[in-house]
Amino acid sequence: MEQRRFHVAVVGATGAVGQQMVQTLENRNFPVGKLTLLSSERSAGKKMRFRGEEIEVQAAKPESFEGVDIALFSAGGSVSKALAPEAVKRGAIVIDNTSAFRMEENVPLVVPEVNENDLTWHNGIIANPNCSTIQMVVALEPIRQAFGLKKVIVSTYQAVSGAGAQAIEELKAQSKAVLNGEPVTPEILPVKSDRKHYQIAFNAIPQIDKFQENGFTFEEMKMINETKKIMHMPELQVAATCVRIPVISGHSESVYIEIEKDGVSADDIKAVLKDAPGVILQDDPSEQVYPMPVDCVGKYDVFVGRIRKDLDHDRAFHLWVVSDNLLKGAAWNSVQIAESLIKLGIVK
Amino acid sequence: MEQRRFHVAVVGATGAVGQQMVQTLENRNFPVGKLTLLSSERSAGKKMRFRGEEIEVQAAKPESFEGVDIALFSAGGSVSKALAPEAVKRGAIVIDNTSAFRMEENVPLVVPEVNENDLTWHNGIIANPNCSTIQMVVALEPIRQAFGLKKVIVSTYQAVSGAGAQAIEELKAQSKAVLNGEPVTPEILPVKSDRKHYQIAFNAIPQIDKFQENGFTFEEMKMINETKKIMHMPELQVAATCVRIPVISGHSESVYIEIEKDGVSADDIKAVLKDAPGVILQDDPSEQVYPMPVDCVGKYDVFVGRIRKDLDHDRAFHLWVVSDNLLKGAAWNSVQIAESLIKLGIVK
Repeated sequence: MEQRRFHVAVVGATGAVGQQMVQTLENRNFPVGKLTLLSSERSAGKKMRFRGEEIEVQAAKPESFEGVDIALFSAGGSVSKALAPEAVKRGAIVIDNTSAFRMEENVPLVVPEVNENDLTWHNGIIANPNCSTIQMVVALEPIRQAFGLKKVIVSTYQAVSGAGAQAIEELKAQSKAVLNGEPVTPEILPVKSDRKHYQIAFNAIPQIDKFQENGFTFEEMKMINETKKIMHMPELQVAATCVRIPVISGHSESVYIEIEKDGVSADDIKAVLKDAPGVILQDDPSEQVYPMPVDCVGKYDVFVGRIRKDLDHDRAFHLWVVSDNLLKGAAWNSVQIAESLIKLGIVK
Repeated sequence: MEQRRFHVAVVGATGAVGQQMVQTLENRNFPVGKLTLLSSERSAGKKMRFRGEEIEVQAAKPESFEGVDIALFSAGGSVSKALAPEAVKRGAIVIDNTSAFRMEENVPLVVPEVNENDLTWHNGIIANPNCSTIQMVVALEPIRQAFGLKKVIVSTYQAVSGAGAQAIEELKAQSKAVLNGEPVTPEILPVKSDRKHYQIAFNAIPQIDKFQENGFTFEEMKMINETKKIMHMPELQVAATCVRIPVISGHSESVYIEIEKDGVSADDIKAVLKDAPGVILQDDPSEQVYPMPVDCVGKYDVFVGRIRKDLDHDRAFHLWVVSDNLLKGAAWNSVQIAESLIKLGIVK
């Protein structure tokens, strides 16, 4: 029997995440029958390669989604808000990588290792969580299942690629300038649309996305709210401090957790994570083995190490969680959702 | 009346911290009558400038300390262990920047803003705390005094200069290589004397100093144990995750605290820190004002921002603490201790 093939659209195909989406569809040998690449007017006409063939990128408009089965969106929240409903109207299932619909009650927010079953109640749009949230919940869910979970405090070490291709170029150009003793003129980071911009080369910027009234940034609130929604734990205590560091790709997280069960050891946590889906345990201090961003780039997994019990609190542990923010944090999680939709028979 | 002037020795004068000690003595107009610069045999013969004069660096030996009033040590733990007692024997007060004596019961571990009075019971050697500890306790002590302090969880973002001048050169050389698409051969970081070395350029390494049996690194245990000793709080709950990032100088820290008092607001914390000694409050999210390492280099203060109340816990707060690790974290805190010794009449 011939395998069913799907008409897939990628919206924002020329961006840092969009390029990874196209590459991931190819790498995973996703059953693509037809691939439609969409972008802004500005990028339309560019050519991208998929399975050895050149595909011309078209300007996205409502009619672009005629006949599309699955539409992967990663072109910013306003594009998603305008075009995702148009895609759904034309029969596509949308997997949206922006924050536009994530907290809407009728939109499932999905990390397949954690809550794949939430796909069953979708209403056309499925939201892909924030990059820093995804890798954290992949590491926390197996611990929750085994030992319960009460509290999470995370400090992030986030790569510039999370802010797009321009931010990568800015880090490289600034790094060269600083090394040559030349002045830098920040224009993109921390937030392109915010008023002030700061040097990222050889610096750490404790702002990702804009500030809310409560002193937290939107990035921090995404980690807090999305974690509770994905894990179905409105009562979970979550706090986040999100920091941009001069890394090209690969987000790292220092995570403190309090679990429900008494008498659990660090080895118990390691045993659970060793067999957890999507997780690679890299934890051997005696051999200086722990995850680092440069090692995780290009890989789909979430890498966890530095697992140790808190010295004061029997039910508290510390972890170090690293993953490629463009892959598991974005493109791969989106394609993985599409694979789950096929596996569960939701898209036919 | 003419001011009393002191014979000061700097041991490890040619190192990253030693150079800053000499510069800080000059900048502070410290009452130096004579300055003796000491180093290993390898660096002996080098010349350094102090107040416009050239001083030749000599190889450190027990006799080097004859007539010295105050000896600032920053040449590694083994040098301190061998020579600090020799300096004391010859009448000098030693201010030691290594970890050699920090946790010894008869050695005060001092951050002047926090526990200056501990200088009164010294026995010849005074220990300067670990860089990442100093800046944190300067920020926490005024909060403790006002509202009590129960628990601290810190994740650090530490600069390479804390690992010495060679580590700075390694970061610069690796950064150039990566930008040019050339391979890198790590030789210094994370820990020169450890077996494996990893790329620091465009990376984050969750190891500073070697690992202990309990899974924490020595750097993390320094933050835990030294904080309790400096603050006279053996019961304080402290946990640390220490991470090296590609920043040249300036350590940053994401700090979660739980205080004792109920009903305290983030504004209350800010009000306390605004007037705290050694602290500069940089906290205005509406204007994107927060501390960053590139802004703190060359300054003596500890910069605090991103102060906000935890969303789940009435007595919990989050802070972002940044300081120049070579100055307040090392050279300036040592010179400041020397100034306190004079002010308190301990050295005459």
